[in-house]
Amino acid sequence: MLHFLNDYQEGAHPEVLKKLIDTNFEPLPGYGEDKYSLSAAEKIRDACECPEAEVRFIAGGTQTNVLVIDSMLKSYEGVIAAETGHVSVHEAGAVEASGHKVLTVPHTEGKLHAADADRLIADFYNDENHEHMVFPGMIYISHPTEYGTLYTKAELEEIYSVCRKWDIPLYIDGARLAYALASRDTDLTLPDIARLCDVFYIGGTKCGALCGEALVFTKNNMPEHFTTLIKSHLALGAKGRLTGVQFDALFTDDLYFRIGRRAIDTAMRMKEIMKEKGFRLYLDSPTNQQFFIIENSKVPELYSKVACGFMDKYDDEHSIIRLCTSWATDMRSVEALRDVI
Amino acid sequence: MLHFLNDYQEGAHPEVLKKLIDTNFEPLPGYGEDKYSLSAAEKIRDACECPEAEVRFIAGGTQTNVLVIDSMLKSYEGVIAAETGHVSVHEAGAVEASGHKVLTVPHTEGKLHAADADRLIADFYNDENHEHMVFPGMIYISHPTEYGTLYTKAELEEIYSVCRKWDIPLYIDGARLAYALASRDTDLTLPDIARLCDVFYIGGTKCGALCGEALVFTKNNMPEHFTTLIKSHLALGAKGRLTGVQFDALFTDDLYFRIGRRAIDTAMRMKEIMKEKGFRLYLDSPTNQQFFIIENSKVPELYSKVACGFMDKYDDEHSIIRLCTSWATDMRSVEALRDVI
Amino acid sequence: MLHFLNDYQEGAHPEVLKKLIDTNFEPLPGYGEDKYSLSAAEKIRDACECPEAEVRFIAGGTQTNVLVIDSMLKSYEGVIAAETGHVSVHEAGAVEASGHKVLTVPHTEGKLHAADADRLIADFYNDENHEHMVFPGMIYISHPTEYGTLYTKAELEEIYSVCRKWDIPLYIDGARLAYALASRDTDLTLPDIARLCDVFYIGGTKCGALCGEALVFTKNNMPEHFTTLIKSHLALGAKGRLTGVQFDALFTDDLYFRIGRRAIDTAMRMKEIMKEKGFRLYLDSPTNQQFFIIENSKVPELYSKVACGFMDKYDDEHSIIRLCTSWATDMRSVEALRDVI
Amino acid sequence: MLHFLNDYQEGAHPEVLKKLIDTNFEPLPGYGEDKYSLSAAEKIRDACECPEAEVRFIAGGTQTNVLVIDSMLKSYEGVIAAETGHVSVHEAGAVEASGHKVLTVPHTEGKLHAADADRLIADFYNDENHEHMVFPGMIYISHPTEYGTLYTKAELEEIYSVCRKWDIPLYIDGARLAYALASRDTDLTLPDIARLCDVFYIGGTKCGALCGEALVFTKNNMPEHFTTLIKSHLALGAKGRLTGVQFDALFTDDLYFRIGRRAIDTAMRMKEIMKEKGFRLYLDSPTNQQFFIIENSKVPELYSKVACGFMDKYDDEHSIIRLCTSWATDMRSVEALRDVI
Repeated sequence: MLHFLNDYQEGAHPEVLKKLIDTNFEPLPGYGEDKYSLSAAEKIRDACECPEAEVRFIAGGTQTNVLVIDSMLKSYEGVIAAETGHVSVHEAGAVEASGHKVLTVPHTEGKLHAADADRLIADFYNDENHEHMVFPGMIYISHPTEYGTLYTKAELEEIYSVCRKWDIPLYIDGARLAYALASRDTDLTLPDIARLCDVFYIGGTKCGALCGEALVFTKNNMPEHFTTLIKSHLALGAKGRLTGVQFDALFTDDLYFRIGRRAIDTAMRMKEIMKEKGFRLYLDSPTNQQFFIIENSKVPELYSKVACGFMDKYDDEHSIIRLCTSWATDMRSVEALRDVI
Repeated sequence: MLHFLNDYQEGAHPEVLKKLIDTNFEPLPGYGEDKYSLSAAEKIRDACECPEAEVRFIAGGTQTNVLVIDSMLKSYEGVIAAETGHVSVHEAGAVEASGHKVLTVPHTEGKLHAADADRLIADFYNDENHEHMVFPGMIYISHPTEYGTLYTKAELEEIYSVCRKWDIPLYIDGARLAYALASRDTDLTLPDIARLCDVFYIGGTKCGALCGEALVFTKNNMPEHFTTLIKSHLALGAKGRLTGVQFDALFTDDLYFRIGRRAIDTAMRMKEIMKEKGFRLYLDSPTNQQFFIIENSKVPELYSKVACGFMDKYDDEHSIIRLCTSWATDMRSVEALRDVI
Repeated sequence: MLHFLNDYQEGAHPEVLKKLIDTNFEPLPGYGEDKYSLSAAEKIRDACECPEAEVRFIAGGTQTNVLVIDSMLKSYEGVIAAETGHVSVHEAGAVEASGHKVLTVPHTEGKLHAADADRLIADFYNDENHEHMVFPGMIYISHPTEYGTLYTKAELEEIYSVCRKWDIPLYIDGARLAYALASRDTDLTLPDIARLCDVFYIGGTKCGALCGEALVFTKNNMPEHFTTLIKSHLALGAKGRLTGVQFDALFTDDLYFRIGRRAIDTAMRMKEIMKEKGFRLYLDSPTNQQFFIIENSKVPELYSKVACGFMDKYDDEHSIIRLCTSWATDMRSVEALRDVI
Repeated sequence: MLHFLNDYQEGAHPEVLKKLIDTNFEPLPGYGEDKYSLSAAEKIRDACECPEAEVRFIAGGTQTNVLVIDSMLKSYEGVIAAETGHVSVHEAGAVEASGHKVLTVPHTEGKLHAADADRLIADFYNDENHEHMVFPGMIYISHPTEYGTLYTKAELEEIYSVCRKWDIPLYIDGARLAYALASRDTDLTLPDIARLCDVFYIGGTKCGALCGEALVFTKNNMPEHFTTLIKSHLALGAKGRLTGVQFDALFTDDLYFRIGRRAIDTAMRMKEIMKEKGFRLYLDSPTNQQFFIIENSKVPELYSKVACGFMDKYDDEHSIIRLCTSWATDMRSVEALRDVI
């Protein structure tokens, strides 16, 4: 069986695991005040070229999304997102449970358009009855998107200028940020991202950690009493070292970027092989998630040899499947695809 | 100035007001346990031909909507509504503040289609990842809709059969129910409505009361400890008599239906006059809200003579305006429209 | 039967009702923007000698309490109240449903002590673990308290100075404020109250209105987009005239103060009679709620002649009962007490 | 420096860490459906002698507490806890953020008395106004308590019989359960605990894991769609293996019990030494947390040699300090205490 089901099916990258082992017996303060959390934060500030960045480590993505949305919005504000955005569809109602509406706009291959968000906000303020409606209070994008696609620098600048025009924050969900940064088709660096938003997170869980996301406030804008807010949002781990140590490893010796490159190299080779084998691309993803169109009749055989994900119906005879690579994917399993399909 | 701005610009229908005056000095128990509230509930059960109906009086529509949604849904469930539904757009985030997502489907002239709701639910359960999504837990419709349109009996039966198929409740927002029941183009009676849903409300605020909506559970399905739920949803008035007395009047001598008929008679005449005067209908509403298309250049003059509402842009040169009638509209002001426009 | 059960058993004071009748047919804008709401606000600003006061009308007390608490506190803050405070005990969990903890301190006859609140806050900030606890974010008091007692000016100044010391707002629940202002044993005027807190409400429901409370922000501190906050807290009535007209009447010709005096005069006389008749005072209330200790064996007979409220067990043989007066109590029924008991 | 600050200052017990290492490269399904989570659940069912137990793994204690409380209570219900209970004081308002009030009762050395809970519930139902109050919907206890004390089997039976009398669930917070089970002064086994409550959790974070708590529903009473509830309560980790693998290790070869015994052995020896050295016990804890009374003047010197926790002021001249042991405490550091103090 070849494993391309997702990018979180293995444990931690060996260098991450090693650091957990090496530090295991050190007595350290809890709740994120240990030296590894502090060191990881410093390394992230450096990597972002953003000395004023405030960095906190959170165990998972849903926690991070809800924490950011609920702590940065007023109670009468909602968050604008593409209708395919993770916060729009796949948070099991956790955003609404925190009291906020997701205001959706159309998407293209998972990407939100600046003009759509701008129009939603302008229409809101032009509406005589807008006091009876949810105020647009933030724009949320994911990079890479849920379809593996990437914003260009020009697109991100345009979205951020909409945010500045209306004085609302831009939040970037970087659950798979390593794969965006390592893509061969991006003009956005980590410092660009830190500069072109108000808050974002650097994903760990799907990029080589056992768990953990690094939440980065880039504009001296971390909400007051944020530790209490993390706790009241059920996201404060007693052993803060668990995420701190891992991110300290991820930002040592460029590991986070090496993890990204390994996944991109294997993903690009996988795309070539699949195309050679006659699979049609559903869309041309420049990151570690690859989407193909397959005849329904061939699905059972494929599933018997390759662990991959069903995404959606394409038409009555075809399905869309997803194959993912990660830090743990080696080139041999990719080449092996050629033989089994 | 002719007044067609909305259906809640005057106080109470004189018969409602008279009953408030007549009962003013009687000492009565609070919180809805007074004899007028009990009598009004009994009259509503009769009018609905639903002896087992449980009836409670709530001050306003947003309260009622949120109370129903939050007390009937599990925390992981959302409510399906047309994208134009009041709960989708005009509750200022109160539904989400109670923790529930609104799951929107397309609309035609404000009406939700049974097939769309059915497909949304079927797609949800077919999705392998549905445990990460909001469960569809209720269908919400308004009757009349926000566009003044009405469901036919066949349409309502179809929507209710979708609810029964998936075992979720149907909730009908009857903020303007008097005008639906009195419409010349409806085949739905009040007993039909009681039979074809699980819970609905009979609007008072927009149908002749100073305030108040009668919430009716028709299937022995009022949530347990509902008085406490009303209070914790900020909707329990100390002087329950205020709504009880009013609904007792509204359901005496057919007043609620007379109010509806008066508004329909004036609305239909108004539609004729407006058409004679060359106004195009935006849609052909059978109830008390009428929508017309008007050239933007003519709006200021109209506004100087007729109080009415701007609804939306129609195209670059035209707007959609709304004229409403109510119990307080007399035929003379309708005929006067002919002279001023 | 003599009626002393509570102060909200009748409808509205005749002058209030008359104004509702007189204005009934005027077409007015909704949602609190009608001229009567504006006029009532102006009269309240005058009566408070607080020209910068921002005044909004809300239908009921629980709504007002939760709206104030939730819109003025950060999500990680709670409200300090006496353990007998209405928000501590009798809101059916509505405060917690809005996400806020009530931090209780002991009471004396319903009154909170400044020193207790100060100590709670000081202890909080001295606690090394306070980031894991709820921040004290507001002090809530009721005046009169739930036991009919009153703060002196010196006590209120002391409580307010605690608030200023810690930079948190003081909120006064004035559900029965008319009876405080009219008490023979108070040195606090309405302007004093406006000056010595950040926000308070002037109760209507229990002081002569059909419904409604006037919420007053006295320090230019009404939260932004407050209309939306009122709506999202389920407290925005479409017919804002209903509360506006009533408060316009209550603040015309000193009606609010006359209502208070009538209730105080009858309450003081009632206290004399009850004492003459051998009833022991549970506490010596200077307002319209009077509390007496009665032998359990005599309760059934009393209940058969006098509608009054059971408050609590006093000891194994005695109960505490409450008799209330209001605008609607006339002296004859008070004198009649002498004969029936 | 000797380290007795708390029981979560080191990483994971070596056997736990080893299992994480050994399984690191296995591709496994996410969200708790991996074979190690299933195996750990099975081992826990065995250890509880409760074959019908439903077991889920959650990252931390606050998450678990809020998830249990919010998913098992109706919206109008609160949870009864000792005023010192973790959910009463140290959850940063997370319980209230989920909409529930904590109804507090007095404590003795951290323990709730069955009679106090029974009286609170009886008083609630006897109160004529209880519909305006929060319904008591659950009893929460921690075992060991926040003071290290333990319930006896008789006490637990009494508390559970109160729950059955009123038909509400008993929830036991076992953040430090290993130390309760290993105490020399307990008559409660793990099967006893499973039998004498409706839901409890077996703490991992403070008992040898990097993170994680095993939540156990013992009466076929896990709420429906619990995976979605876990996610909407921000507690569903993508890499469910992280907690599953750790609990699989903790329940292999009696590790969880060995961890408990090690901490108890060192704690009991530490208590002897401290007593020999003249420290007064604040209370006589039978578990891994030990509390001593110390003169304020001696605190700085102690702190310079021994990492321990300040708990509270004892009187003007004395403080209460806490020393903890854990799986990671060796007897040599305990004996070393003798020399440094």
